[in-house]
Amino acid sequence: MNLQTTSEAAPMAAAPEESPEDLVARLARDGRAAQRVLARLSDTEKADALRAAASALRGAAPAILEANARDVVAGEEKGLTGAMLDRLRLDSARLVGIADAVEQVANLPDPVGQVIEATERPNGLKLSRVRIPIGLIGIIYESRPNVTADAAALCLRSGNAVLLRGGSEALHSNRAIRAAFATGLESVGIPASAIQLVPTQDRAVVGAMLTAAGLIDMIVPRGGKSLVARVQADARVPVLAHLDGICHTYIHSAADPEMAKQVALNAKMRRTGICGAMETLLLDTQFPASRDVVTALIESGCELRGDARARSLDSRILPAGEEDWDTEYLDAVLSVAVVDGLDAAMDHIAAHSSHHTDAIVTADDAAAERFLNEVDSAIVMVNASSQFADGGEFGLGAEIGIATGRLHARGPVALEGLTTYKWQVRGSGQTRP
Amino acid sequence: MNLQTTSEAAPMAAAPEESPEDLVARLARDGRAAQRVLARLSDTEKADALRAAASALRGAAPAILEANARDVVAGEEKGLTGAMLDRLRLDSARLVGIADAVEQVANLPDPVGQVIEATERPNGLKLSRVRIPIGLIGIIYESRPNVTADAAALCLRSGNAVLLRGGSEALHSNRAIRAAFATGLESVGIPASAIQLVPTQDRAVVGAMLTAAGLIDMIVPRGGKSLVARVQADARVPVLAHLDGICHTYIHSAADPEMAKQVALNAKMRRTGICGAMETLLLDTQFPASRDVVTALIESGCELRGDARARSLDSRILPAGEEDWDTEYLDAVLSVAVVDGLDAAMDHIAAHSSHHTDAIVTADDAAAERFLNEVDSAIVMVNASSQFADGGEFGLGAEIGIATGRLHARGPVALEGLTTYKWQVRGSGQTRP
Repeated sequence: MNLQTTSEAAPMAAAPEESPEDLVARLARDGRAAQRVLARLSDTEKADALRAAASALRGAAPAILEANARDVVAGEEKGLTGAMLDRLRLDSARLVGIADAVEQVANLPDPVGQVIEATERPNGLKLSRVRIPIGLIGIIYESRPNVTADAAALCLRSGNAVLLRGGSEALHSNRAIRAAFATGLESVGIPASAIQLVPTQDRAVVGAMLTAAGLIDMIVPRGGKSLVARVQADARVPVLAHLDGICHTYIHSAADPEMAKQVALNAKMRRTGICGAMETLLLDTQFPASRDVVTALIESGCELRGDARARSLDSRILPAGEEDWDTEYLDAVLSVAVVDGLDAAMDHIAAHSSHHTDAIVTADDAAAERFLNEVDSAIVMVNASSQFADGGEFGLGAEIGIATGRLHARGPVALEGLTTYKWQVRGSGQTRP
Repeated sequence: MNLQTTSEAAPMAAAPEESPEDLVARLARDGRAAQRVLARLSDTEKADALRAAASALRGAAPAILEANARDVVAGEEKGLTGAMLDRLRLDSARLVGIADAVEQVANLPDPVGQVIEATERPNGLKLSRVRIPIGLIGIIYESRPNVTADAAALCLRSGNAVLLRGGSEALHSNRAIRAAFATGLESVGIPASAIQLVPTQDRAVVGAMLTAAGLIDMIVPRGGKSLVARVQADARVPVLAHLDGICHTYIHSAADPEMAKQVALNAKMRRTGICGAMETLLLDTQFPASRDVVTALIESGCELRGDARARSLDSRILPAGEEDWDTEYLDAVLSVAVVDGLDAAMDHIAAHSSHHTDAIVTADDAAAERFLNEVDSAIVMVNASSQFADGGEFGLGAEIGIATGRLHARGPVALEGLTTYKWQVRGSGQTRP
């Protein structure tokens, strides 16, 4: 296979005088044409295409690693931080992981064609609501080159074409991954333009993507808060995203003390940098073991910032300012408040939650059900760590992202969230009276 | 009952120095607070509230008709057209219809609380996706005062608060209907601010509603194309709407001739002014009875505009210009093209459809299934009149509108389209490894 030529050829080159809007329109037209092919593929054909892409990624390992090495050298010269270089860097093991992930998506059930509901009207009309792909998905991401393959795999599995716009630090890596992926698709007769990478790093192209209503059907930003905030502020195309993960865990008066301690420790400290990590702990004033929970958190290395009542539990707790209740630390830092019962806890959550994931620990079923029903977040949990907020943990196989908006799809979004539906009506000549 | 006082009092008055943005923010805050009450109501409580609203509307008939008479007089003085005055005018029978419609919505099943799916993970976590209300819905509409009650009923049945902004021609009618409706809600303990009407006709308030992301969760425009176009162009809040209903009926070579004629006549002529009316007829070059279909349409009073091959069928067919293929006539006018087979028909539809409703007439099951699967519209039909594109005809009971967007809800949108979901996770102390 000649991975570096066919797929990076004509459709990806920007004509020098082309405006960002014209470039996006051209890429979108090509992507939409390819999507009409994808929409007609069977489950098996799409799975085979992803297996071919995984195989092509494995075959292209030397080219991808060479391209990635160029990005890493350039990143070192530009003075990227160690964390950024780590996100950027690929090695053989990571590349195997990327190809394996594509193959795992191939093994997921195809949502397209599923009949959501079917009814027959008294006049004999047969109605079905059937899942179909959304169309062309735009992915705007930062330095992780694995997103190129992960996002493309999820989009293609659900019959969507994808227009990728990665970060400049990973440009060569992304091009090489995209080229290999597209070659795999072409080997089974799917147009390479089903997966396109914006060929320029001109930031105006991002703006053109965000406003390409009617050309791009949905945008998924993958990256830090400033990227997501910019996309949400400027987009006219629907966006699937979450800005913050300000997740609360409320320890109810009837919580099992040991469970409360273990759930709180895990929710905060398992990994502090993920969006499902607890950022605020609410301790019920009637919960008898608050001091144990607080002590365990401090002794695990977490900095605690509390209100006056929380600080009375342990002298090592620092004073919390008003902004702490609205801060996503993504670090070993936690805000702690003592609240007067379930309603006060839910009021605090209503005022400060980012509507991502909020949890209660309690042995009281009535309190649990009220919390589940009344807290208005994408994910609400009872007696579990908020770190379970993840598509894989939810059994979805993989996720394109976690959404905190209210329409279309919420929480972990996987293949089903990348589909919409149409109504199919089968008649026998009915006319409307 | 004193219908005119309590519900039109303080929350509806605009402070004189209040900006449109501040006004919308204040109304939205009040609406969202009321929505938290609605979200907790049971099926029965919401149904009872709507029955109380219907009863209050009946009781307030004299006040509503008096208010409407003022609007009609003002409209006549302003020189509104007869059609506009007819849309505006209420009488006892129409008012009974409005109250009955509210009661019918009370009788529809409550979507809130429905479990979309439930799974249990190997670690024992129990996951459910459960329908919940969207939140605060903004309705922007023109001269039909019945929308005030219809839209409010659908929103409240699904647990949503509603912020109404009606046309200035119907201001007094809308205020009286809203006041009666709110009084009905209050009689069962629901805050009147669950249904609010913008208290000013300042057009800047519409702009403030359209950009109130985070305050208003979804906007539904109800009215003519210029209203919908403005809303779609300016909104930052998600919009549920369709701009055009450019609906196609394709008569396949294997269509039953009599069925083709009857379906085409009904799709065009039953009511020419609705969004599901056929606007373009595609006749297969191999269909033997095209002349009969065309003649029947002309003799029913329809003006036909055709391409060269269509015009050869009947000398009374006028020549179609390029713009005819993209025109929603909403009148007894139809564009007609002769096409070379199924693929050519689907290509024409892909190029010109507004993705509302497109239909095929055929006795060939394979052709029917290809059309159903490959035509990318919210509603696709086989052997049925496109005039069935309606929430009532689909068995949804009523509709808030028909949507041609790709996300969240498509086609006729009723109660389910006014809901979203949350994930409820029930654990027993699980922590993530």
